[in-house]
Amino acid sequence: MIAQTGKGSINMVNNSKMHGGNIKAAAKEYDLQLEEIIDFSANINFLGPPSVVEEEIKASLDQIIHYPEPEAKTLCNELADYFGIQSRNVIVGNGEVELIYLISKVIQPSHALVLAPTFSEYEAAVESVGGKIELFKLSRYNNFKIDMKSLFSKLEESDIDLLFLCNPNNPTGDLITKSELLKLVEVAKNEETFVVLDEAFLDFLMNESEYTLISEAVQQENLLVLRSMTKFFAVPGLRIGYGIGNANLISKLESSKDPWNVNLFAQQVGVKVLKEDTYITKTKGTIKQEKEFLYQQLNQLKGLNPYRPTVNYILIDISDTEYNSQQLKSLLASKGILVRDCSTYHLLGKDFIRVAVKNREDNQKLIKELKLLLDLGGQ
Amino acid sequence: MIAQTGKGSINMVNNSKMHGGNIKAAAKEYDLQLEEIIDFSANINFLGPPSVVEEEIKASLDQIIHYPEPEAKTLCNELADYFGIQSRNVIVGNGEVELIYLISKVIQPSHALVLAPTFSEYEAAVESVGGKIELFKLSRYNNFKIDMKSLFSKLEESDIDLLFLCNPNNPTGDLITKSELLKLVEVAKNEETFVVLDEAFLDFLMNESEYTLISEAVQQENLLVLRSMTKFFAVPGLRIGYGIGNANLISKLESSKDPWNVNLFAQQVGVKVLKEDTYITKTKGTIKQEKEFLYQQLNQLKGLNPYRPTVNYILIDISDTEYNSQQLKSLLASKGILVRDCSTYHLLGKDFIRVAVKNREDNQKLIKELKLLLDLGGQ
Repeated sequence: MIAQTGKGSINMVNNSKMHGGNIKAAAKEYDLQLEEIIDFSANINFLGPPSVVEEEIKASLDQIIHYPEPEAKTLCNELADYFGIQSRNVIVGNGEVELIYLISKVIQPSHALVLAPTFSEYEAAVESVGGKIELFKLSRYNNFKIDMKSLFSKLEESDIDLLFLCNPNNPTGDLITKSELLKLVEVAKNEETFVVLDEAFLDFLMNESEYTLISEAVQQENLLVLRSMTKFFAVPGLRIGYGIGNANLISKLESSKDPWNVNLFAQQVGVKVLKEDTYITKTKGTIKQEKEFLYQQLNQLKGLNPYRPTVNYILIDISDTEYNSQQLKSLLASKGILVRDCSTYHLLGKDFIRVAVKNREDNQKLIKELKLLLDLGGQ
Repeated sequence: MIAQTGKGSINMVNNSKMHGGNIKAAAKEYDLQLEEIIDFSANINFLGPPSVVEEEIKASLDQIIHYPEPEAKTLCNELADYFGIQSRNVIVGNGEVELIYLISKVIQPSHALVLAPTFSEYEAAVESVGGKIELFKLSRYNNFKIDMKSLFSKLEESDIDLLFLCNPNNPTGDLITKSELLKLVEVAKNEETFVVLDEAFLDFLMNESEYTLISEAVQQENLLVLRSMTKFFAVPGLRIGYGIGNANLISKLESSKDPWNVNLFAQQVGVKVLKEDTYITKTKGTIKQEKEFLYQQLNQLKGLNPYRPTVNYILIDISDTEYNSQQLKSLLASKGILVRDCSTYHLLGKDFIRVAVKNREDNQKLIKELKLLLDLGGQ
C-alpha cells in the first residue's frame, strides 16, 4: 500500500539538487546561454575527454541495438589487467555514485560514520537503507584535516558498522597517507567496521600509487575502493565508475545490482581510455601546474584564504570578504562563472566556495572577476 | 560488518544471466562472430533505431563533459507533452528495469504477487528488498491466459501489498483489456494493494490507446505504469525507460533514486525519438504484418505450437518435437540463430522457446533452420 512507504524513503532529501555541475539549471536560473558558462562548480578534467572517446562512441553506434553486457565483463577484465588484479575483484557502476548506494544496500549499516564536511551522497545512501549517520566532525581551526588518531578512537569507542572515507577529501582536498589508511583498515577490522574508500579524484595525483589501496582491497575482508572515470576522463555525461574489493564482496555486489546498469557507450569508452597513456601523463602534469597557479593567484586576492589543493579543486574560505558564499556564487554566476557554494556541506556555513582547477585562460577570468568583486566589496 | 549482509542480499540470484540478448556471451559460448548472429532472443524492433538516434548522439558529443540533468527534466517535460499529462507525473529511469527495483524499494512490500510465467525481474526486485513472492499461476491448459476473476479473488483473499502485471504478458503475449485493468485497479485499491503495470511492449500495438492506463495513472493512488523506450526504438544499449503515476508517488520515487541515473545520450535521444511519427507508424504496421507471417509459418512446422502473438514476440510450445528447449536453443545457436530458451520462466519447463518477430529475410532463415531440424528430428 502506497501510504506505507519504506524506511528511509519518507525523510530522504534528493541531494542531487545540491551538487555542482547542473549547468542547464544554472543557465535557466541566471538567464545564460550554455556556451557562455565557465563551469568551476564540477571538478572535471579541463582538458576535456581524449579524442578516443568520440571515436569510440561513433564506432559503437551500430551496437546500440543490443543490450549492454549485464556485468560489463569486458571492461572489468580491462580494469583488472590495468591494475594487475583479477576480474572477479572489479565491479562497474552507472557512475561511481551507483556503487555508493549499492554498498550501502549490501552492508545495511545500523550506524555509519562519515566525515563532516565531505561528499553528501554517502549520507544520503546510508539513509536510503534506513541506517543512522554519525558525523566525524573535522575542525576548521585545523583546516579540516583528518586527525587519524581521533578517528581510530571513534571507531574503537562507537558501534560503527560502516565508514565512508574520501581520499583526498572532497571539498577540503586533505590527503591521507597509505600507511595511515592501512592502519585504519586494521583498526576497522578489529571493530567489525566495513570501510568504503572513495578514491574518485586520486588519479589526478602524480604519485597516486603511493596513496591508492587498490592492491590491498583485493585481499582485505572489510574494504571497498571506489573510483570514477567521470572526473579524470571528463565524461560525466556517460556514467562510469568502478569498485575494487575481495571476490566474495564483489560477487555480492554484482548479485544485488540492477541488470544492464552500465550503458553500451560507457562500457566501450571505459575500455579505450585506459590505454591513453599520453593523455593520462599530460593530465597529471597540467593539473599539477595549473592548481599551483590558481592557488597562488587566489592567495593574493583580498579576503580569500584558499586551501592548498592536492588534486583538481580548491576550497576557499571567503569569510574575510564582504560576501557570503551564496552572494559570491550569484555575483559570479551573473558573469557566466559557476562556482560551488559550499553551504550545503556540513560545518562550512556560508563561509566557503569550491572551484575546480581549469585552464590558464579560464583561471585568469575567474581571478579577474573575483578581483573586481573583492575590490568593490572592500570600498 | 561485511558478514552481516542485508536481508535479501544473500539468497539473491543474478537474474540478468537468464535473459535473452546477451549476444557477446552467446558469441563466446557458440564460437560465433557477432556479425553472423541473428538475435531472436531479445524483443527489439527489427527496423533498428530511427536515424535521428545516431544524429542526436553525434550532436550531443560536446555535452559529454557535463553531468546529465539529475532528474532528466527536459525528457520528463517532453514525455508529459506527448501523453498530455504533467511533468510531475513522469520519472525517467536507467532502463525500465531500474524503475522496477525503485518502486519495490519505495513500496517495501511484505507480500508481492507476480504472474507465473512472467518477466523475472519483478520477483528479483521484490526479493532484493526482502519481500516475499506469491505466484499467481497461469494454466497451460488455458494457454496461460490470465483469469481476471481468479486474480480479483486472489487479491481479496490474500494479504498482497504489491502486484506486478505485464500487459501484454511476457513471454505469453496475453493482452488484458482496459476495462478489466480498471476493475483490477479498483479491487486492488479496496485491498490496499499497489499495482505496477508494465506496458513495456504495448506501444507495438496499432491500437495501444485502447489498452494503456497512462491517463488513468496520474489520477490513481495505487498505480504506476512503466514503459520502455528500449524495445520500440531499438536502443537497448542506451538505457531509457519511464514511469507514470500520481505526483506524490513520482516525487517519492525521484527522491529515492540515485542521482544522475540517466546518461546524457539516453536523455537527448529520448526527447528526439518521440517526434518520429513516421517511424512510429511504420513500426506498428510492419510488426503487425510480420508477426502474422511468422506465426503462420511457425504454425505449419511439425511439432510446433506457437501462441498467437499480440506484439513483437511469439511463445512456442515445442513439446511435440523431439527436442527440449535447451537442445533446440543450442542447435539453432550453432547456426547463428539465437532464440530464448524459456526454461528459466516458472511453469514452462523445457517445453517452450520464445522468438522475436524480425524482418522477412531473418524470419525465413529461422523457419528454414527450424524446418531442417524438425524434419531431421522426426526421422
